[in-house]
Amino acid sequence: MTGNPIRSPIWHPFTQHKLEPAFKKIVATDGAYLIDEDGRSILDAISSWWVVTHRHRHPAITNAIQLAAERFDQVIFAEYTHDPAEELARGLIDLTPPGLAHVFYSDSGSTSVEVALKMALGFFHNNGAPRSRVVVMQHGYHGDTIGTMSAGERGVFNAAYAPLLFDVDTIPFPEPGHEQETLDALEQFCRSGDVAALVIEPLVLGAGGMKIYPAQLLVEFQRITRRFGTLFVADEVMTAWGRTGTLLACDQCDLSPDILCLSKGITGGALPLAVTLCTAEIFDAHLSEERRRTFFHSSSYTANPIACAAAVANLDVWRAEPVEERVRAVAAMHRDRLVRLQSNPRFRNVRQQGTIAALDLAGSSDGYLSEVGPRLRAFFRQRGILIRPLGNVIYLMPPYCVTEEDLDLAYDAIEEAADFVGNTV
Amino acid sequence: MTGNPIRSPIWHPFTQHKLEPAFKKIVATDGAYLIDEDGRSILDAISSWWVVTHRHRHPAITNAIQLAAERFDQVIFAEYTHDPAEELARGLIDLTPPGLAHVFYSDSGSTSVEVALKMALGFFHNNGAPRSRVVVMQHGYHGDTIGTMSAGERGVFNAAYAPLLFDVDTIPFPEPGHEQETLDALEQFCRSGDVAALVIEPLVLGAGGMKIYPAQLLVEFQRITRRFGTLFVADEVMTAWGRTGTLLACDQCDLSPDILCLSKGITGGALPLAVTLCTAEIFDAHLSEERRRTFFHSSSYTANPIACAAAVANLDVWRAEPVEERVRAVAAMHRDRLVRLQSNPRFRNVRQQGTIAALDLAGSSDGYLSEVGPRLRAFFRQRGILIRPLGNVIYLMPPYCVTEEDLDLAYDAIEEAADFVGNTV
Repeated sequence: MTGNPIRSPIWHPFTQHKLEPAFKKIVATDGAYLIDEDGRSILDAISSWWVVTHRHRHPAITNAIQLAAERFDQVIFAEYTHDPAEELARGLIDLTPPGLAHVFYSDSGSTSVEVALKMALGFFHNNGAPRSRVVVMQHGYHGDTIGTMSAGERGVFNAAYAPLLFDVDTIPFPEPGHEQETLDALEQFCRSGDVAALVIEPLVLGAGGMKIYPAQLLVEFQRITRRFGTLFVADEVMTAWGRTGTLLACDQCDLSPDILCLSKGITGGALPLAVTLCTAEIFDAHLSEERRRTFFHSSSYTANPIACAAAVANLDVWRAEPVEERVRAVAAMHRDRLVRLQSNPRFRNVRQQGTIAALDLAGSSDGYLSEVGPRLRAFFRQRGILIRPLGNVIYLMPPYCVTEEDLDLAYDAIEEAADFVGNTV
Repeated sequence: MTGNPIRSPIWHPFTQHKLEPAFKKIVATDGAYLIDEDGRSILDAISSWWVVTHRHRHPAITNAIQLAAERFDQVIFAEYTHDPAEELARGLIDLTPPGLAHVFYSDSGSTSVEVALKMALGFFHNNGAPRSRVVVMQHGYHGDTIGTMSAGERGVFNAAYAPLLFDVDTIPFPEPGHEQETLDALEQFCRSGDVAALVIEPLVLGAGGMKIYPAQLLVEFQRITRRFGTLFVADEVMTAWGRTGTLLACDQCDLSPDILCLSKGITGGALPLAVTLCTAEIFDAHLSEERRRTFFHSSSYTANPIACAAAVANLDVWRAEPVEERVRAVAAMHRDRLVRLQSNPRFRNVRQQGTIAALDLAGSSDGYLSEVGPRLRAFFRQRGILIRPLGNVIYLMPPYCVTEEDLDLAYDAIEEAADFVGNTV
């Protein structure tokens, strides 16, 4: 693999530079493809880490960015507001489950969950009955900051930082046939009366290995949290914007979370932005003539107008174009192709949720550091396809403009990769 | 104050909505001004919370955003790289103190400090001699996430979240005449041998009240941290990009931090972006054939190419335009006007560091929640000036295009405000 002639000073995310010394430059993005410095088109089968939804560089979103930059750069978001943020907030309230009434802006998925944790603790603190315990799900992932790592699965990702993480209570992932154990664990934790929030990725646990559980369980979770006055935080940073087959994963059942975290697809994948939505009760607990009850949170670039304008354009795309139809089409393309893989003994747990397809490579070790991961990645790269397995878990999560031909390439490559890495049952 | 006819769903940062029910819309930004929905120009005397450096909407930065949006949206930053990130990283290495050799991207000031904390703990963990204690300075502010609140001053900002914060060791702010106490406290903490990092805002503590201390102390801090193998983390999220009179606050003395955090002015104030720079030693401690030594950190929009392109354009402005001259001119304008205020008994601690001017209102209570703060803010708003006191601390931190006339308006308003709020000694 070639690379930059001069060694780059960049430290890339989730990258062991000793094993990956050089990186190709991407010179442009287009539709479902990344174009590299050699002019090669690479199928972006994981939407550049789950952020690009409709397609790379949707013209309406590009145009909105260019127009907004003619009028705005950053505007202080205390004391003042602006149309891009107002339009986006109203649009988000319209699109999300009933009960969500307020929108707080930040910059990344991690900060949207940090805000959620603070809203939850602030709610109980301001109501004079403090609660600070947080319940999370085994294999969960909520980000890489101290607060969000604390809420996520402990292990190799965060072992070095363990002394700084706060303790949480963890319910087991609801494996088929063991759902009641998960519900019982949640009920037991919540019954103690001091659980502020259940923080959970609805339907699909992303970085934890694309683990899928049924929507009906979310309704059961909500029944339990409501009974004990625990707030339900839906971290839809990965699952929202059509990924699971509906706009939100919450939309697959009668789920009205108290707090909802969104990022990634909120700008269609163009610019960094995140939001945390919450109920009127949570906002009202911070509403007071006492200034000490204020929600003391901000970031340098809260509600950046150019990023908000990109997100407004994204909402327009959802309204004006047949996005839901495309999502259903991608889901159907996966379904057709997964049948073939289900009967292939090299694969286990072939599964799908909307536009997300995943399977485990049989005969290889489990876990993120499974040695098969980098070999698979290199194989796919050779084929001109960006697929980045989570250990032995291969998944596809393409932009919605992906074609039958694109997916044939990806599925053929997955079958051949399994042969290539030589894992037989 | 008028506002939106329909109640907005937006929850604004650091805002008590009960006391501030309506917000004016900003419809455009221009130079040192925000333009509101009534066509009124508001002097942005605090650079929209310290992010806008040269001027609002510098044409070269606007142009770079528009051009980059023609080629890029988000590109996965594991496995691939792109010119905007590469150029920016090289430019940053050139501009920052010797010893800093690697650049890690994230989205906000808070995340840049979260990354710094993780780099520090990872360094010691991977070298087989774990350290996890963190030393910070009294009145420090490093962000609003769980990790950065832990490193910041405890108080009303974060009381509700205290159960989730980790413990740190705090050295006293070096008040004039008490510097040795600060140095002794630092040495005592570091001597224990388990301090991973000193995390500090060099020269000026921002949100803690624009508290200024001499550059020579930074050299002393560095001498102590080096002696005990503690890493020096310079949080220059607020102080960098000319604010203190030089490109970095570190540049005012012979300070070579082990880790440097930058955000805000990195894009000139246009789009969200942050970086954490570090030494080769820290990077190398993560370099291994063992994948478990990888730095496991990312965010949804790591190294967004459009934001990186804005930052590349900002570096070009620093190279091509007489920015340092402008910074000196702003500093000189402050100096001339502060003389007048120094002899005014309504003010205490009249102080300046480069383009930052600050003073305390005499006869009013100290602290962020000082009741005088909102009254001052309303007075300045009436005058068409955005000044947002930190309690009884009034400060100016204008974009570098600010004129003599602009600053006359601001200083006149400050003098009149002191009369208006009726605080006499």
